[in-house]
Amino acid sequence: MESNGLSTQWGLAELHGSLTDPAISSMNLLNELIDEYPRAISMAAGRPYEEFFDIRLIHDYLDAYCEHLRRDRKMDEAGVTRTLFQYGTTKGVIPDLIARNLAEDEDIDAAPESVVVTVGAQEAMFLVLRTLRADERDVLLAPAPTYVGLTGAALLTDTPVRPVRSTENGIDPDDLVLQLKRAGEEGKRVRACYVTPNFANPTGTSMDLPARHRLLDVAEANGILLLEDNAYGLFGAERLPTLKSLDRSRSVVYLGSFAKTGMPGARVGYAIADQRMPDGGLLADQLSKLKGMLTVNTSPIAQAVIAGKLLRNDYSLVKANTREIAIYQRNLRHTLDALTRELGDRPGVGWNTPTGGFFVTVTVPFTADDALLEHAARDHGVLFTPMHHFYGGKGGFNQLRLSISLLTPELIEEGVRRLAALITARLP
Amino acid sequence: MESNGLSTQWGLAELHGSLTDPAISSMNLLNELIDEYPRAISMAAGRPYEEFFDIRLIHDYLDAYCEHLRRDRKMDEAGVTRTLFQYGTTKGVIPDLIARNLAEDEDIDAAPESVVVTVGAQEAMFLVLRTLRADERDVLLAPAPTYVGLTGAALLTDTPVRPVRSTENGIDPDDLVLQLKRAGEEGKRVRACYVTPNFANPTGTSMDLPARHRLLDVAEANGILLLEDNAYGLFGAERLPTLKSLDRSRSVVYLGSFAKTGMPGARVGYAIADQRMPDGGLLADQLSKLKGMLTVNTSPIAQAVIAGKLLRNDYSLVKANTREIAIYQRNLRHTLDALTRELGDRPGVGWNTPTGGFFVTVTVPFTADDALLEHAARDHGVLFTPMHHFYGGKGGFNQLRLSISLLTPELIEEGVRRLAALITARLP
Repeated sequence: MESNGLSTQWGLAELHGSLTDPAISSMNLLNELIDEYPRAISMAAGRPYEEFFDIRLIHDYLDAYCEHLRRDRKMDEAGVTRTLFQYGTTKGVIPDLIARNLAEDEDIDAAPESVVVTVGAQEAMFLVLRTLRADERDVLLAPAPTYVGLTGAALLTDTPVRPVRSTENGIDPDDLVLQLKRAGEEGKRVRACYVTPNFANPTGTSMDLPARHRLLDVAEANGILLLEDNAYGLFGAERLPTLKSLDRSRSVVYLGSFAKTGMPGARVGYAIADQRMPDGGLLADQLSKLKGMLTVNTSPIAQAVIAGKLLRNDYSLVKANTREIAIYQRNLRHTLDALTRELGDRPGVGWNTPTGGFFVTVTVPFTADDALLEHAARDHGVLFTPMHHFYGGKGGFNQLRLSISLLTPELIEEGVRRLAALITARLP
Repeated sequence: MESNGLSTQWGLAELHGSLTDPAISSMNLLNELIDEYPRAISMAAGRPYEEFFDIRLIHDYLDAYCEHLRRDRKMDEAGVTRTLFQYGTTKGVIPDLIARNLAEDEDIDAAPESVVVTVGAQEAMFLVLRTLRADERDVLLAPAPTYVGLTGAALLTDTPVRPVRSTENGIDPDDLVLQLKRAGEEGKRVRACYVTPNFANPTGTSMDLPARHRLLDVAEANGILLLEDNAYGLFGAERLPTLKSLDRSRSVVYLGSFAKTGMPGARVGYAIADQRMPDGGLLADQLSKLKGMLTVNTSPIAQAVIAGKLLRNDYSLVKANTREIAIYQRNLRHTLDALTRELGDRPGVGWNTPTGGFFVTVTVPFTADDALLEHAARDHGVLFTPMHHFYGGKGGFNQLRLSISLLTPELIEEGVRRLAALITARLP
């Protein structure tokens, strides 16, 4: 008999395998480390800029959505309150508004019935992977390095993720063909490939237009889905068409996030899954069935806040984020300029030059691991993210990710100065 | 090459097994059927009463929480806006307020660090089952009939659920002992047993105090967890102590819901998991790690709405629901009185007599399946839930569930009259 309520058999080894996966343990370690040094300049957090946060906006967005229900949907007051207070439909209460936003900002023609509103893009990833993982043959492809949230969703669904080579032009379609062939030879069934064509997390890289077309061709020819994550697409000097807007064969499931463009605190995202099922209906209907068993529905109040932001900005998040886009572009320029100034002549030190998004990849000629991060935090007062965390601990030990989203030009200057001191001290 | 974007291999049979499980298919069918007859009197929906919904309450609750952050947490305005707008901690921003509520209403002494705020109790169920399902030996026990959300979470985590006999005194501890023995003999590892001691969904039954103590003893002696779902506990004439408040060996994980007592539209629930892990920390920390990969965090805005309701009512949901409790009690009495009046002398027809909650079980001497429901909806204008949906289609074909929560006395009278006409016409 146990006094702590768990038998001795209940150690971590007896719980679900995801809990002890190196990828998850390392991210937890990383977060703890970062929490330990709250006064260091953080080029680690990929959170959106905070200057324009204002509690009154939440009230105003709620009002805007309620007005919309009364005026455009002709709801009486009981209908309006029921929409916000009561359980909502599993697919969400704002798919039509999301469809209008996608038409406005992304030239994506999404039928509202293909939209499933989710608790952030994270839940959408889980739902898609859970749907596609039927048995142990099923695998997912993803660029290496890749977003940790994708790794997490794969772990929760027991889905093996096989890496595809990633270059400064994003995921490599030729290596994708090779990996598809290999997986087939090994008796595996590739259901989908995860991609972030715009300003990817963690690398900051984007795919050019020919690479996008080639990727779509490969997906169509091989009967796999592309899971397109576009969390950062809005924040670019130049904006290329999303895969979904180019998709003529319904090869793309679009994973939408409002965390960076709407408000992280709403925790609202969505999937566009317009694939027709042989048995009738859309893939979105299957995602919705699983969502009903996972979170029932996304908070209508949270959806109302996002809807209100769309309604107050003519359905355009580009318009809503005019100031934020300028700030992220300014921060990116400042970061790249500071890197050139502080580290431009250091042998073996380099970085990529993204034209948008939140992230820059810096390469160094020594090991950049958690020990280095701890040293940087303690002795130099600067935080970054060791890139190996995005390789599941299997690579990237000479790279680090810098985030530019939450800082001011002054903090960027000082942060890069501190980073340069750290790096310079490590050079031979 | 396919024009619909999914290869022919992508039929339902090639997707995750949960999508074609009889339990889920039948619930979907049921919902479609109910949607088809919107003008019938619905004794099917278990939604909370709507009369006191008021949009202004959402604004007021948000204000109350912001005031709390300023006054009690000494936050400046940037801190307040950051708390609501930005990503929050995975375990949630209101565990301390939930702990105060549990102390106030349920005599449960929960450390804030043992609380994980979730997207409804549904996500809490998923997290617990995902954590506990390490390999194919792991099984869950649950009363038959049981809540469909539990069945759903089990399907998503590939966890087999083995039934335990349920009586008018709730789950039967003696049958639990028997099922534990059988599972062990078959090489299975029972991790937990799901229970709803107060006014269970779907049956309406409750456990008496000796049965609660006996259940705790069985759990402790066998080293299994009890997953206590208390969604309806507040709505009783008499309120017995929760298992968690009686738990001296940390055998109970408490699954909390604010859907009925707070506001369904907030989609906020929680788990209390104060079990100490042999490797350090609490079971709550493991749930939180999985939540970070599933939904990242529960919307702080949604949490703020629930927090505001707690703050405006001295942390007591009993106080906040004074009017609702009276209405549910009145509706239950009206339903039982109407059943006696309309069906009291019909041979083979019976029902239980819950003293609280939303549900009554009616037993009939003929098959009460979806065909009967369709007939009831079309020809009698009344909706109920065939009980077999809560047995995974494996039993309960002579029972139906009546919900009393969303109706007025007039609708209850008329609904039961229509139901009586249907039943009487079927009697020999």
